Amino acid sequence: MDLPLVLLDAIIARALAEDLSAGDITTEACVDAQATAVAHAVARTPMIACGGQVFARVFQKVDESLLVTIHVADGAHVSAGARLWTVSGGAASVLSGERVALNLTQRMTGVATLTARYVAAIAPGTKTRVTDTRKTTPGLRVLERYAVRKGGGHNHRDHLGSAVLIKDNHIVACGGAGVAVLRAKAHATHTCRIACEVDRLDQLEEVIAAGADIVLLDNMSTDVVREAVRMAAGRVVLEASGGITFDRVRELSLLGVDVISVGALTHSAPAADIGLDFELSIK
Amino acid sequence: MDLPLVLLDAIIARALAEDLSAGDITTEACVDAQATAVAHAVARTPMIACGGQVFARVFQKVDESLLVTIHVADGAHVSAGARLWTVSGGAASVLSGERVALNLTQRMTGVATLTARYVAAIAPGTKTRVTDTRKTTPGLRVLERYAVRKGGGHNHRDHLGSAVLIKDNHIVACGGAGVAVLRAKAHATHTCRIACEVDRLDQLEEVIAAGADIVLLDNMSTDVVREAVRMAAGRVVLEASGGITFDRVRELSLLGVDVISVGALTHSAPAADIGLDFELSIK
Amino acid sequence: MDLPLVLLDAIIARALAEDLSAGDITTEACVDAQATAVAHAVARTPMIACGGQVFARVFQKVDESLLVTIHVADGAHVSAGARLWTVSGGAASVLSGERVALNLTQRMTGVATLTARYVAAIAPGTKTRVTDTRKTTPGLRVLERYAVRKGGGHNHRDHLGSAVLIKDNHIVACGGAGVAVLRAKAHATHTCRIACEVDRLDQLEEVIAAGADIVLLDNMSTDVVREAVRMAAGRVVLEASGGITFDRVRELSLLGVDVISVGALTHSAPAADIGLDFELSIK
Amino acid sequence: MDLPLVLLDAIIARALAEDLSAGDITTEACVDAQATAVAHAVARTPMIACGGQVFARVFQKVDESLLVTIHVADGAHVSAGARLWTVSGGAASVLSGERVALNLTQRMTGVATLTARYVAAIAPGTKTRVTDTRKTTPGLRVLERYAVRKGGGHNHRDHLGSAVLIKDNHIVACGGAGVAVLRAKAHATHTCRIACEVDRLDQLEEVIAAGADIVLLDNMSTDVVREAVRMAAGRVVLEASGGITFDRVRELSLLGVDVISVGALTHSAPAADIGLDFELSIK
Amino acid sequence: MDLPLVLLDAIIARALAEDLSAGDITTEACVDAQATAVAHAVARTPMIACGGQVFARVFQKVDESLLVTIHVADGAHVSAGARLWTVSGGAASVLSGERVALNLTQRMTGVATLTARYVAAIAPGTKTRVTDTRKTTPGLRVLERYAVRKGGGHNHRDHLGSAVLIKDNHIVACGGAGVAVLRAKAHATHTCRIACEVDRLDQLEEVIAAGADIVLLDNMSTDVVREAVRMAAGRVVLEASGGITFDRVRELSLLGVDVISVGALTHSAPAADIGLDFELSIK
Amino acid sequence: MDLPLVLLDAIIARALAEDLSAGDITTEACVDAQATAVAHAVARTPMIACGGQVFARVFQKVDESLLVTIHVADGAHVSAGARLWTVSGGAASVLSGERVALNLTQRMTGVATLTARYVAAIAPGTKTRVTDTRKTTPGLRVLERYAVRKGGGHNHRDHLGSAVLIKDNHIVACGGAGVAVLRAKAHATHTCRIACEVDRLDQLEEVIAAGADIVLLDNMSTDVVREAVRMAAGRVVLEASGGITFDRVRELSLLGVDVISVGALTHSAPAADIGLDFELSIK
Repeated sequence: MDLPLVLLDAIIARALAEDLSAGDITTEACVDAQATAVAHAVARTPMIACGGQVFARVFQKVDESLLVTIHVADGAHVSAGARLWTVSGGAASVLSGERVALNLTQRMTGVATLTARYVAAIAPGTKTRVTDTRKTTPGLRVLERYAVRKGGGHNHRDHLGSAVLIKDNHIVACGGAGVAVLRAKAHATHTCRIACEVDRLDQLEEVIAAGADIVLLDNMSTDVVREAVRMAAGRVVLEASGGITFDRVRELSLLGVDVISVGALTHSAPAADIGLDFELSIK
Repeated sequence: MDLPLVLLDAIIARALAEDLSAGDITTEACVDAQATAVAHAVARTPMIACGGQVFARVFQKVDESLLVTIHVADGAHVSAGARLWTVSGGAASVLSGERVALNLTQRMTGVATLTARYVAAIAPGTKTRVTDTRKTTPGLRVLERYAVRKGGGHNHRDHLGSAVLIKDNHIVACGGAGVAVLRAKAHATHTCRIACEVDRLDQLEEVIAAGADIVLLDNMSTDVVREAVRMAAGRVVLEASGGITFDRVRELSLLGVDVISVGALTHSAPAADIGLDFELSIK
Repeated sequence: MDLPLVLLDAIIARALAEDLSAGDITTEACVDAQATAVAHAVARTPMIACGGQVFARVFQKVDESLLVTIHVADGAHVSAGARLWTVSGGAASVLSGERVALNLTQRMTGVATLTARYVAAIAPGTKTRVTDTRKTTPGLRVLERYAVRKGGGHNHRDHLGSAVLIKDNHIVACGGAGVAVLRAKAHATHTCRIACEVDRLDQLEEVIAAGADIVLLDNMSTDVVREAVRMAAGRVVLEASGGITFDRVRELSLLGVDVISVGALTHSAPAADIGLDFELSIK
Repeated sequence: MDLPLVLLDAIIARALAEDLSAGDITTEACVDAQATAVAHAVARTPMIACGGQVFARVFQKVDESLLVTIHVADGAHVSAGARLWTVSGGAASVLSGERVALNLTQRMTGVATLTARYVAAIAPGTKTRVTDTRKTTPGLRVLERYAVRKGGGHNHRDHLGSAVLIKDNHIVACGGAGVAVLRAKAHATHTCRIACEVDRLDQLEEVIAAGADIVLLDNMSTDVVREAVRMAAGRVVLEASGGITFDRVRELSLLGVDVISVGALTHSAPAADIGLDFELSIK
Repeated sequence: MDLPLVLLDAIIARALAEDLSAGDITTEACVDAQATAVAHAVARTPMIACGGQVFARVFQKVDESLLVTIHVADGAHVSAGARLWTVSGGAASVLSGERVALNLTQRMTGVATLTARYVAAIAPGTKTRVTDTRKTTPGLRVLERYAVRKGGGHNHRDHLGSAVLIKDNHIVACGGAGVAVLRAKAHATHTCRIACEVDRLDQLEEVIAAGADIVLLDNMSTDVVREAVRMAAGRVVLEASGGITFDRVRELSLLGVDVISVGALTHSAPAADIGLDFELSIK
Repeated sequence: MDLPLVLLDAIIARALAEDLSAGDITTEACVDAQATAVAHAVARTPMIACGGQVFARVFQKVDESLLVTIHVADGAHVSAGARLWTVSGGAASVLSGERVALNLTQRMTGVATLTARYVAAIAPGTKTRVTDTRKTTPGLRVLERYAVRKGGGHNHRDHLGSAVLIKDNHIVACGGAGVAVLRAKAHATHTCRIACEVDRLDQLEEVIAAGADIVLLDNMSTDVVREAVRMAAGRVVLEASGGITFDRVRELSLLGVDVISVGALTHSAPAADIGLDFELSIK
């Protein structure tokens, strides 16, 4: 139930409509309706598996009689050659659903795998989190956020209504960072936190004084971040962002930053290399 | 009209619902309703611009009174710092639409830019095409195929119903490549071509004899491809695929392959780095 | 799986919403909730049965507990009085789903039956195909194309993106048929064929020389078609279209035309006369 | 406003998605983006024009800059050669929207034209109405009912919730026609009428006594209908149905039947022959 | 089947998307995936239970493995403390679906309970009906109309197309009540009744003479209604409306009014107080 | 832009489809197409106006040529008789859209008005907020939350993913309130607050120590709440809920509670009495 079924089904319906709106003319021509098959999704390289439920649901929406077995839990680290999931039943149905099932799970697994690499870069013993951003693929946010979690990361706010995040332009519009935080506190629900981006260290105290819960340090050098950590002294959550590399993750975590947010987790993760090994058995 | 409006609007509605379903609480709190702004989408690195119409349409769906200017045509190669598109009007509306507009256009521009790099690797004077595959982002296929074209590439078949593509499993199911081609020809519409993947060169003649229009050479070495080109002698379109690098594009084009299909164009293109430079003007 | 479930379900949901949006007040008033029934869909005249899966799916969407048996495969020629499909279970549910089930299957069977009449008119021993066109019922194209296939016909291109079909207006826009074909070849995917309509025989050679795969002969007399077949000499697929009668099908097939496309298959097929014989059994 | 915009737009969006989901590759290749055109929808045979608003709305959804002029009101009888509607603007957009616009309006005009033929068969001076049934095209009911009205006919109940119509199976389920009417009267809203089908004349008095508003005479001979009219003596609306020919319309109207319902109006109307005469003007 | 499944599922999908679009972060954090639970929906006050099928369907859409038992039929009068429905299965799924299930059923039960209070106010032995109006919650009309019926009330017309209801503005537009009725009779389907609102008693005879089936007496005093009943003398259905209190229901029913329509049934019914008693059982 | 257009349009499309799916047969029959009208939405009682944009958008979706003027801002307190909004244009269109426009705005205004009554009960000089809950009308949450804000209230969390709210059942599942808070903190995004319900005062310290941001005091007596405020000493946000009356609001605010959440704001607000005064002007 981690992935709400009602959203998942809408995504899958859309994806299947996109690929199957005029049938699968190759399979219809070449594969006997009676033929059955077993097909194994196999990791071609080491990866963090992600998407078992999605894999299963795609094939069930193509053909309710297909059976799917999930061999590894989402979030598991698997070696090259590992079997992830198996689908069996009508060969034609398996072939027709293959591409959509892989397009979705390769992306999810790609995001989980990239996330795990960032998480592995956190210095041991530190409390730092790696999070995603709202730079997700339109229409697939729910899947990508799930994949980030399965890769060991955390999510950032879900959308524009689920937390306050005051950026430079909001500050300009308000005439100051402190004012912006105060206006946000007065306006926002009591259940969401107030995050505020700062450009310069001299804004930090003002923002904390105004009651921000989170301060975003955007594109700051190591020295500046170190000073920010010292100044904040645990009074707020400190989040670093902006073109973070693996090396920087280690460095920032050692400085005591609470959160490192990485847009690349979702906007630039390469698809994982998952193949579908297909075994036909003519009935 | 290159991007069918009816599909584009459905994609945008979905993306906006995902991000704005509970409003933009930061902007509502911090930005006066009367404030106006001008914001320029700017290339942070060299890239192939793609998505002007999408950029415009997103903002119009957020707020019909926003105005958008498109400075460069889709497909134009721009330098770092170039202004791509400008939106102006209510500051709050601009801020609320920013992320969705960028998420879509950064992806499209990323695909166009990666495609252009592959296309640039084709040896001059050869006739080879670089194409995408069906390994697209579910729900965004129409945008990604468009971006491939604007990057100088061509599209492969759109979906499972728009052309026949016989793969190894279909051949096994039919008991042979030639039989598969014949069954496909009998079944498919007369308006679509018959493509057939071959594993070994000894299948090539059988497939051509059966009347295939296109032969897919999957993961073949340079020597084998060279021999395939010689054997085919122009009787069919030859398509190479499977983990193609830039170096391989040049090599394959010199061998005379007609088409090189590259899944990475769409499944692994990193997002282009486009920023939105925002200038507020309080009325 | 010939009919993609995801599309079929969308069509059925729409149809049921249209007819049942305020319940079935007659059945609610007159039929006890405990009453059960068996109802047989029966051919009132000879016909080509088509729509068994649709019939079953409609009733399952009305009430998951209904059972459906399919007696004849889609495409079977049945005599008047033949039982096609049987639904059993709650009488109220059967009555409420009856009209939608019949509206869809009478149309599909009507299209299959009309198609079979055209196919029967093809002269024995010739290779000619009868195909549909894009003149389908908006929203039901996938069902009607399926019905054409089950009637023994073939499909034409599915939509504007699945093959090139250059018509007179495109030729005018390009300034000539040959130029149009060349532009289309440069633009279209390598997986789709290039069809070009010609008005006059003097365009035929130009179009073939430019590399068209298919030439459309629109509304041409028997003599002109005969000459076109002679000139083409098997170099292209020849398609005849335009107000084709049964007599003309025979004549054109004898001339050696490859394809005869008939808009009437889908835009003017009368509904097949299928009745639902209902037997009530009060529990 | 006769056609609710919100339904019309949903139908058109669906139809355009069906035909344009992968663009219009022919037009994109062959028609310059700057080219403009004027295209006239022209009646090829005499017909009752229907669908001007639909024609306009389709083209506006393809391209908001297209202009449409409606020359004749829906319901007008036009001669062969008459101009119905004109669209002008970008040539590519006109060509891409043509098929969907014609598919919808040829169907609507076909229904209106067939309806008008039935209406014309009513004997002058009689009060008889010709109505449609619920045997409409799934997804297009609202358009077809509109077309029936524009052809001079009337509509029957819209769906299963908008009036009571007791058929033979409902009578069996209730154990008698009179009981069925009484149950329906107790159950149905006070705003909808109670119609009841009778098989035999001896049911007529029972049904009227129970308070039916409308009695349906299904497949009855002229003599039986005459007797029914005499027995009813104006106390109920009498509706005849079941395989009604033009000759029968005249006969039944002379007998004094109030309503003749004809399924063929919507399930078997051939498409009207409307062409689109296209004039290109390169800018 | 009283609630069409296809509409019900659309409502539930929407409601779940609204509440679960970003998962249930509390439950995910706090409840083990293996934990199971049994939860009973319990009436906190006396009420007319309504929504068993909805309750079941919501939980099945959250998690297909949940089981639901319905203890009391819709429409049953239950005491405070009564168990209505029970759901059991995965504890996390139960908690995630709870709010949507209650939001829908508390509203339905609220409407049924308020309706029953109005119905109880009808004087014994009279024939008067209490009905709803079109003042329903947008998007939930089908559920609210069902709840009215289960509360012992009847429905009014479903929507603007399911019956004629001439109001004062229509009369002004026609230039008179009688003219309006005549125009409506000529235009409306023969299966729907003609209702006409009157402001003054002197319109009553005109409206009856013109053939109205129903006369609506809006906001009339007891004396005027009594006179209207006398004048109508059973020739039409008389409906009273406008700010009807419980006392007035009794009075109006004694006067012989046929129908009393009450907007408050749906636009102002307070939610019923239904709790979900939850028992956790860690596996 | 406070109400995201993309959501608003979906709600309106649904509402119009519900009411206009078969046209407005009364208006079509009785109102000339040329007739125009001006109609004023007028407050029949004092109220907090809410829904101007919705009122305008409904009519524009019915007929793009209608004009709407908004006389008072959402949130304004108006007296009985005040004009809120005016629509003018085609009389038929105005009549057809009236009910949907009023159904939505009467509900919104009802919620705003009830909210304002609760807000007015807060003791002057205290900092207490009145908030809604997730007990909103399925499908209309975005409108109702907006109305709460316009009534002077604040929103609670939007949905299950936008903040953590640990209730008694979550505590049981975790084996303790403190454990539950710790698990939630480890799991939830850093941008959302952790709220935890407590049943007894002895849980309060445990929950604060574990790091909760908000403590929910459910159905507690005045004495217990007073003690809780003393114990919390400003370390957490204190929220009171459970059957709150106006008197209790005053009392709780004087005690120093931060938030009072009231389900009745949305689940039981009676519709506001807004009439539409219609003036016809035949052209």
